[in-house]
Amino acid sequence: MIADSNLVTEALAGNRYALARLISLVEDDGTNARGALASLYPHTGQAHIVGVTGAPGTGKSTLVNQLARSLRDQGTTVGIVAVDPSSPFTGGALLGDRVRMRDLAGDEGVFIRSMASRGSLGGLARATGDVTKVLDAAGFDVVLVETVGAGQSEVEIARTAHTTIVIEAPGLGDEVQALKAGLMEIADVLVVNKADRPGAANTARALEMVIHRHHDRRGNGYDAWRPPILQTIALDGTGVPEVLDVVAQHREYLEKSGAWAERERERAETELLNVLQQELLNRVLARVGEEQGRTWVERIAAREVDVYTAVETILGRQ
Amino acid sequence: MIADSNLVTEALAGNRYALARLISLVEDDGTNARGALASLYPHTGQAHIVGVTGAPGTGKSTLVNQLARSLRDQGTTVGIVAVDPSSPFTGGALLGDRVRMRDLAGDEGVFIRSMASRGSLGGLARATGDVTKVLDAAGFDVVLVETVGAGQSEVEIARTAHTTIVIEAPGLGDEVQALKAGLMEIADVLVVNKADRPGAANTARALEMVIHRHHDRRGNGYDAWRPPILQTIALDGTGVPEVLDVVAQHREYLEKSGAWAERERERAETELLNVLQQELLNRVLARVGEEQGRTWVERIAAREVDVYTAVETILGRQ
Repeated sequence: MIADSNLVTEALAGNRYALARLISLVEDDGTNARGALASLYPHTGQAHIVGVTGAPGTGKSTLVNQLARSLRDQGTTVGIVAVDPSSPFTGGALLGDRVRMRDLAGDEGVFIRSMASRGSLGGLARATGDVTKVLDAAGFDVVLVETVGAGQSEVEIARTAHTTIVIEAPGLGDEVQALKAGLMEIADVLVVNKADRPGAANTARALEMVIHRHHDRRGNGYDAWRPPILQTIALDGTGVPEVLDVVAQHREYLEKSGAWAERERERAETELLNVLQQELLNRVLARVGEEQGRTWVERIAAREVDVYTAVETILGRQ
Repeated sequence: MIADSNLVTEALAGNRYALARLISLVEDDGTNARGALASLYPHTGQAHIVGVTGAPGTGKSTLVNQLARSLRDQGTTVGIVAVDPSSPFTGGALLGDRVRMRDLAGDEGVFIRSMASRGSLGGLARATGDVTKVLDAAGFDVVLVETVGAGQSEVEIARTAHTTIVIEAPGLGDEVQALKAGLMEIADVLVVNKADRPGAANTARALEMVIHRHHDRRGNGYDAWRPPILQTIALDGTGVPEVLDVVAQHREYLEKSGAWAERERERAETELLNVLQQELLNRVLARVGEEQGRTWVERIAAREVDVYTAVETILGRQ
């Protein structure tokens, strides 16, 4: 066993067992985790964080797998954080990402982590960000963060990436199309996967139109980058090197334009607000105490008081 | 124009224009909204809140539409809150739910609201809960809350419902199956829609197995209710009355077993925590000030300080 205090040193030195334990520690979000994160934080900021997101059925995991293999062929080390759409109750990952990623196993230049859902607002985003930081500090050149791409938590996670790849596939239904609308604005690179299926060209054309519309009104300071649209067949690797080329170009663009620094500031701001909020809540709950907290909940449930009046009373009017 | 102070009175008296304005006020989350919510809160608690959730492509909106029509045929009034998977940036709903719901338009016993995404952690869940409360207070017998059913925000929203209907459809891909796993545990009623498609019986059997597994380890106090599995063809209304029968049985079960009161307490607790957290953050940000806040963000982005040390310094060690 390695003592918690040595975990960071050992993990940063390349000890994979220490790395795995450090990630578990960080996921658990205790006091020790905070100490560990504080000491590894100066070592972060080197990795290229690449979000890979898309609606269900687009072949996202297969593409992540191929991207990782291609990066390894280039000699680039890769961390993978797979955010599972698992239960908020069991806290356990239900899908075997590690199974799907089997052909990467045994490679020292790859580290794969499946995230269990955290079961609370923002908890998953917090844990994913922290695990990404550990892999960054541990020296992985690229960290791929795979999310389902539906729902706000996923969008929040995608926003912490330097480069976000949004995956589409031909022939998905109308509701899937709807999901795209929300994803379109966070996309830096668009991939039409399953490009051998009928309708791939149509899907690409439809994306081109959406990009055209969004691009013209983006106003988020990254206007000079127009998201390219690529086609892949992840199953056999067709088009994967081209995606990596574009991802590398995007990194270069970010650095030269100052957008990399801007994204770092945005990420820092999001994290500061999230941690502040959680810490403030913890402190107030400790002060109010469990019994009084239960009484407030009962009174709200009984409609004796509304939640806003309750909060004003608990905190005092200011 | 109606003054804000009269909006609640007018809306509760059945003025639809006031109701629409009150909902917009509540969505905006200002000080006036809080006053309005406080004064309408004692009138809430009567409506049966029914969450309708499912993966993309299951025909969810069509089923919501049919459920609403069927409820109207029974003389039941219906509020519909459609939570759109729209952009976190534009803050606007991108899909025309109101268009899809056209055949309900003009009916005084129906009120439909499409939610725009709130663009911040928990914001959508907060707004959806508050809009649901307005419809509850305004006297709608049933409030249907339609969510995409992927991602944690949606799960959070579903948890505030009394009864959650999870919709499946035959022939969706593996990743869609994966989404189901997380939804299975919040399901009170399972519907296999598009039951005229090949594979519907298989889907129902697969659900039966998952339910069997989850049911045995649920341990959340509702073990006596075993989620029934129904089949529908939402397009022509087949099976819709049967779904409503089961929803009514679930309400009866909740009331008799004490689970209704338990869910009210859970909802109250979630809301109390969310509002506390938001209010605490607002107060600290006001105290810290914009300029100092920016300095902290810059220092974190530059790796001069980690976020946990920053928060401890801002709040003071306790």
